[in-house]
Formats: sequence, structure tokens, C-alpha cells
Amino acid sequence: MRTADIGLIGLAVMGQNLVLNMADHGYTVAVYNRTTARTTEFLDGPARGTGVIGTETIEEFVNCLTRPRRVMLMVKAGGPVDAIVNQLVPLLDEGDIIIDGGNSYFEDSIRRTMDLKERGLRFIGAGISGGEEGARHGPSIMPGGDPGAWPHVKGILQDIAAKVADGTPCCDWVGPDGAGHYTKMVHNGIEYGDMQVIAEAYHLMKVGLGMSHADMAAVFRRWGDGLLDSYLIDITADILGHTDEQGDPTLEVILDAAGQKGTGKWTVISSLDLGYPMTLVAEAVYARVVSALLDQRIEAAGVLGSAVDESGVAGQEWGDDFVDAIHDALYASKIVSYAQGFMLLGAAGGEYGWDLDYGRIAQLWREGCIIRAAFLDDITAAFARRPDLPSLLLDGFFTDALRKADSGWRRVVTAAVGAGIPVPAYSSALAFYDAYRSERLPANLIQAQRDYFGAHTYERIDRPRGEFFHTDWTRPGGAAT
Amino acid sequence: MRTADIGLIGLAVMGQNLVLNMADHGYTVAVYNRTTARTTEFLDGPARGTGVIGTETIEEFVNCLTRPRRVMLMVKAGGPVDAIVNQLVPLLDEGDIIIDGGNSYFEDSIRRTMDLKERGLRFIGAGISGGEEGARHGPSIMPGGDPGAWPHVKGILQDIAAKVADGTPCCDWVGPDGAGHYTKMVHNGIEYGDMQVIAEAYHLMKVGLGMSHADMAAVFRRWGDGLLDSYLIDITADILGHTDEQGDPTLEVILDAAGQKGTGKWTVISSLDLGYPMTLVAEAVYARVVSALLDQRIEAAGVLGSAVDESGVAGQEWGDDFVDAIHDALYASKIVSYAQGFMLLGAAGGEYGWDLDYGRIAQLWREGCIIRAAFLDDITAAFARRPDLPSLLLDGFFTDALRKADSGWRRVVTAAVGAGIPVPAYSSALAFYDAYRSERLPANLIQAQRDYFGAHTYERIDRPRGEFFHTDWTRPGGAAT
Repeated sequence: MRTADIGLIGLAVMGQNLVLNMADHGYTVAVYNRTTARTTEFLDGPARGTGVIGTETIEEFVNCLTRPRRVMLMVKAGGPVDAIVNQLVPLLDEGDIIIDGGNSYFEDSIRRTMDLKERGLRFIGAGISGGEEGARHGPSIMPGGDPGAWPHVKGILQDIAAKVADGTPCCDWVGPDGAGHYTKMVHNGIEYGDMQVIAEAYHLMKVGLGMSHADMAAVFRRWGDGLLDSYLIDITADILGHTDEQGDPTLEVILDAAGQKGTGKWTVISSLDLGYPMTLVAEAVYARVVSALLDQRIEAAGVLGSAVDESGVAGQEWGDDFVDAIHDALYASKIVSYAQGFMLLGAAGGEYGWDLDYGRIAQLWREGCIIRAAFLDDITAAFARRPDLPSLLLDGFFTDALRKADSGWRRVVTAAVGAGIPVPAYSSALAFYDAYRSERLPANLIQAQRDYFGAHTYERIDRPRGEFFHTDWTRPGGAAT
Repeated sequence: MRTADIGLIGLAVMGQNLVLNMADHGYTVAVYNRTTARTTEFLDGPARGTGVIGTETIEEFVNCLTRPRRVMLMVKAGGPVDAIVNQLVPLLDEGDIIIDGGNSYFEDSIRRTMDLKERGLRFIGAGISGGEEGARHGPSIMPGGDPGAWPHVKGILQDIAAKVADGTPCCDWVGPDGAGHYTKMVHNGIEYGDMQVIAEAYHLMKVGLGMSHADMAAVFRRWGDGLLDSYLIDITADILGHTDEQGDPTLEVILDAAGQKGTGKWTVISSLDLGYPMTLVAEAVYARVVSALLDQRIEAAGVLGSAVDESGVAGQEWGDDFVDAIHDALYASKIVSYAQGFMLLGAAGGEYGWDLDYGRIAQLWREGCIIRAAFLDDITAAFARRPDLPSLLLDGFFTDALRKADSGWRRVVTAAVGAGIPVPAYSSALAFYDAYRSERLPANLIQAQRDYFGAHTYERIDRPRGEFFHTDWTRPGGAAT
């Protein structure tokens, strides 16, 4: 019987493409799929001539793997992962490795790492980003879990991963148990934010400045060669430039109701649980939610008046260089979003006991994944200068960048507010930026209110932290401890 | 042996005050507390002469209740509720009633209603708001759970509740299982929002306009007689007017780092789970979180420049009537916040199968609770006009109010953006308002991006919903289904 270096279960497109990617790199891969017909189609089709071993039962699949066995799961997150793990456990031997490459919730990966360790098996939860193309030719891979498993899968995962310019793979050990899937979750949250800041730029250009699709495509093409050099900017240029058979912009017939699959939401929920700000991603998730309220929006446009028409009149007085101001608003908002994302990673590291290498995480995202961007090198550089940097906003490169973008950013938000064009991400990021650099905020009033109605007590600026005071606010005079 | 109409377990301040409130209304109450010393102190102190029956064991407690027994729990939410429920179950008889009056998570109340029903008992999860004072003299009570229990507790709960001007109690059946605690959760989320919109007004007056505390107190006092007539505005006036022994404003020595206990967060999480926008409350929760990052804020003020000084210079050119514009920004933001809150209640009603009476819920909050306000009558009136109103923003009263507030609101956000004063709630509410009344949003670009990198497909504006299209964006030409 032929033996395989690694096995993969789940032959949807992502799974198939990872198998072909592994085969390209000289690995022999065994595959198993619940429906055998799909296995057959794969072997007769895309996998023909690759040496991939098809199996019809999970026992046959397990038996042809070299030891320690490496089993990668590309099945739907949630129950299906547990179901297949439970099928595998009695068939595997001590030290064998299960790699979950799906979009699993990080707390499930924490649980699975512990459960399988108790049963003598080693679990890896690996976030994989890059869509079908990434899976086929080099995704970003964020593995975490049982550290003892890493040396056995490092070679193969790094071989199939995307590479940065100097050849460094966009795959490295992130940390214990759920660290890999957590990092993937934050990646997806940031992806929501990146898409929203681009959507706001497009909206301003279209209904504010009244620009043609060709002109907008040219702007994004130009931006893609500068500070915003990134995959999402590039594909936005492609999209804006795309026309149908009649030569009309394809984009304009697409229904403006955006879907969401949950990982953006998870990021926001985690930030709330950990008590860290993730305002831009939250606004991005909510922007999709509002877009989906189509019927209400149409009724509201009728009774409240549509926020803007599409004549481009709103921006007549915005000035010739307004597109540059939009660039600055987008760039500054993006900095805030990543600053928030890395603050959240720091908080999660503390909470869950992960010793995360933030600069390396930025490099895992440098190629292969949806948020790949030159910008990530600046993040890596910032953490190289100060590994315990509490926030990117405190690093010299980014403080300079924000100072330069400041006036354009404010100009755009002001113009949008005046014209009634919603820019929730730009304005939320700006509010966060201004709050973050405020030595004093009005939270003293909130503490006073809580003390007034709920006797919650408060701390004082002229006393050490940890001393608590209460005031009877309906009577004049001093505060009692 | 004397018998009691109702029993209450948990003699912290809220529990004690509810007992005294019940006694005031002629009810005989049995009490039990884990630590008997507290029961003794209560009976010898505040409860002296009230006829309250103290008990030393849970058996003794249960035995002196008339049937069906009514047991109210005022213990810490979470595990402690389950622990005491488990102690009670074997001692109770079929049809007896357990009322959880704590700040329990609504999903726990759903579970407990079902679990206890299976064991022949009837559960009520009752949200109670109003703090210690409310508990003593008339709180807002939001009961939900087993509808069969309601007739047996309606009299007592409505007797102790706050009353609106015409005598209607701020207590009525909300709906099945978790509906009461869900409504209380949304109340608390809205409370976070109300406090934040007030804090932003204070911040603008203090650091923008450079107003004295006496002047600010006078403004809030005046506002409390108008459209903003509410408890939180009144106590803000008290707080701003409060001085210490030296005659200095007490507020200014309070540390500007706000705490949060979780119910605001729950509201935001629920809105994300249900896919409904709750942007203002989310920004309010995050504003507290940012305030708590004191060390980072101080470092950021150093490297990025403090957003504002406290000289009042920023607002020199804002005009004499800027305070009125702040009023309008606060009022409009408050409308958006309540619109979002009632949209969320509607979504939850659909999801969990509750037939909620939104106008009545607004009246439950009309007195007794922290967010009590004249404003709630306008909400009740709106739902009387159209019981299935999808959003308050579509009601004539509120559309008029928003139209009137529009220019002041935009003026405030613009001024704040220019001065670097963070107004996350005002600006987020405005962005939502403008998005909500937009017939078209840039979500078509987001759908195109998702189709580009993930083949997610999209719907078209010129085709029926439910037809999905995919485009190969790297090649010109038409879309394939």
C-alpha cells in the first residue's frame, strides 16, 4: 500500500486547492470525503496525475498515513469538526496530529486542544486566509494549538504558504491552543474594516464628487502604488473598471445589501468581552447590517428625505484636491483600525496566556490573505522598535502619518457630515483618535452619575488608584470614603 | 405559625428595600439570607415594626409561605441563582413560583423557565430598574417567563412598582421566558447611551465653550424642563452644581475612567447576533473602555498632542447659540438611540417568539428607572399610531423632531471634528441616520469585493431577490448566474 505524508478530509474547493498545493510541493496526500463521488471526481479531474491517494472509508484513510499521522480537516466549523474528530480519535495513535484548517471559533480550538491532549493526541487550529486562489497558490496560515505538533507540520505548512519578498513564509507558530484561530478572527475583523473604509471612499467620490467609474478606477489604481498598496485596493480598481456587454459599470447593478458570515461579529464580541475598543470594525459590521435593511431604508428615504442624490452636487465646493483628502481619511482610518486590532491581540494574549509576536503576525498577513498590504511592513517595523508597544498610535512612524493625514481626514468627515453622506468608519476612527489622545475625557461625569444613582463610588485624580469615594450629591459638601 | 404572602431571598440593599416596599403596601413578607446575621440586623433595624418574618433555614422559609408559594430571589446573577433554585426545587410544590429579580442574562431566564416548567414549577425573570431608591419607593419592573404565574404575582408587583401620572403601574407582563430580562438588558444598553450623549454635551461645554460649572448646571436644569425632561438630565444638573467644602466643583476631582458592569455589553452583543444596528450604545460602551486606558491616553497626549486644552478657545467662534445646537445634537442622538433599541426589541421578539407591546414597554420605563423621561410618552404615542412601526425614525413626530434638530446636530459634529473633541455618540448616530435614509449605500462594492475574492455571489437591483450572480472580475463582459 502507498503511504501518504499527510491526509486531508473535506473536498470542497478550499480543501481541494490545499491538496493540489501540497502536491505541487512534492507531498503525497491522502484524501477522504464523506461523499465518495466527490473524491472520485477530484481524482479524475483536478488531481489527475498528482499522486493524490483517494480513500473510501475513514479507516482506509487513517491507515495509509505515515506516523505521527497528520490529518487536516477542511470541513464546516462547529459541529462537523467535532463529529469528524470523534470519528478519528479511536482510529489514531498517541502523538498523531489533527489540524483544523476551517474558520473555527477560537474557544472551540482552546477546548479541542485540551480534549485531544487528554486523549494523547495533538491538535492544531490553523486559520487560513486567501480564499480559493490563496489555498491553491499560497495562503496565509496562522497555526496555534499544541506546540509539540508544530515541528511535525512546520515544513509542509510553510511550503504551501504564501511567501514575502525575501522568501519568509506567511505561516509561523502563533501560540498555544486558540491563538491561531483568534489571530485569524482578528484578521477577518480587520478585513471588514478595510472593506468599509474603501466603500466610504467610493461613496464620497460617486455621490459627492460625481466621478465616473473610469475615473474612480484610475484613482484606486494610483492609490495602489502608494501608501495604500494592497490587494483590496487593487481589486477595487478592477471592480470599478469592470463593464458589462453594453459597456456599463457592472458594479452599479449590484444590490447594495451586504452579507456577513460572523467572523467580523466575533471580533467585535471578543473586544467587548475583553474591554478593548474595536470601534471601526464594529461600525463596519453595523454598516453591512444597515445596508441589509433595504425596505426600511427606502421608506426612510421617502419620509426623511434621501441623504443625498447621486448628482455629485454635494461636492461641488469640496475643491480639486478632495480626492487626496479622501486618501488621507482612508489611510488614517486604516491606521486606527489596525492599531485597535493589535491592541485587541495584546489584550487576548494577556487574557489567554499567549505570548504573541505582533511583528511576526503582521508578516503572516503580508501576502496570501485578503488584507495583504505593504502597510503591514510598517507595523512589523514598529514592533521591532518596541516589542511591547501598547498601541501603534504611539509609534513614531504612525504618529507622523496621522499628523500628516489629520487635516484631510477632518476635512472629509466635515464635508460628509455637511452633505449627509454617511462615513461611519472615518468618523468613528476620528472620534477614537481624538479620545485616545485626550488626557481628560468626560468619563468623570459618567462615574458621578453612577455614584449618584447606584452608589458605585469613584476614584479621584488627587488620590491613588484603588481608593473609592462616594458623595451624597443631593447635599452640598465633601465626599465620604 | 404566621404565614407570609411572599418570600424574598437575598438581603443586600436591593432586596431589603423591595421587602420594605412590599410591607408598605400591606404584604407580609418572609425573608431568608444565607448569613443569618444579616437577617437579624435587618429585622432589628430597617424592618422593625413591619411584620416581616425572618427565617433561619430555607425549609422554615418555604414552610411559612401561602400557596402557590411566591419566592423572589435577589441574589447575584449567574451561578448563585441556579444554586438557590436547586435548593428550592425539592422543597416546593407543583405550581409554586420563583421570581428572579436580579440582572440575569436573558438566555438564562429562557433556560430556567423551561427547566422549572418541566419540574412543575413556574418561573418569572423580572428585570428591576431604579437602583436602591427605586426598589424602596417604586421601581420599574419588567417581568417575563411562565405566563401562568403572572396572575399570582401581578397584584403585588404592580403595587410596589412606580406609577405614571395617571396611576398606571410601571410593571406589566412583557412576554414569555426571557422577554422581561431582555427588555431590562435593552434598558441598560440605552442607559449607557443616554449617559454618553450627556457626557459629550458636558465635554463640549467645558473644553469647547469654556463654561463654568454653575453655567453648565443651569443649562441642564433648563433642558430638564423641556424636550429632554428626564432623571439623568436632572441628576447631571445636581452633579454639575455640587461643590466641595472649598466651593470647588466636586465633579472635577473625579477620575475620568468609567467602569462598566456588562449589561451594556450584552445589548451590543445581542444586536450583533441578531444583525441589527446598535451603533450608539456600542460607541457608548467603547467610550467607557477608552476612558479606562488612562496610561495610554496620557502617553498618547504627549506624542500626538492632546486633542484639546481646557481653555475654551476651541469654541470661540462657535456662536452664542451653540448651546442650543448641543441640545439638538443630544436630542437627535437620543432619538436614534431609542429607535435602535426598539428595532432591537422587534428583532428579538421575532427571533425568540415574543409578542412584545412596544408602547407599553416605553411606559414601563416612564417612571422608577434610570432612563425615565417624558420622551417615552412620545414613543408610546408613536406605537399607538402604528403598532408595527419598524422604526421610530419613520414616525411623523420623530421625523419632524429630527428635521428640526438636523442643522444643530451637524453643526455640533462639524465643530467637534474641527476642534478635536471626540463626540463618538453624536457622530455615530448621525452616520446611522444618514445611512438609514439612504436609498442607496456603497454596500454594492462590498458585495462585489466578496464576489471577487470569495465567489460569494451577489444579487442585482434589476432582478428579483434570491437570484444570485457571479462575475469573473478580471475579465471584461457579463455576469454568469
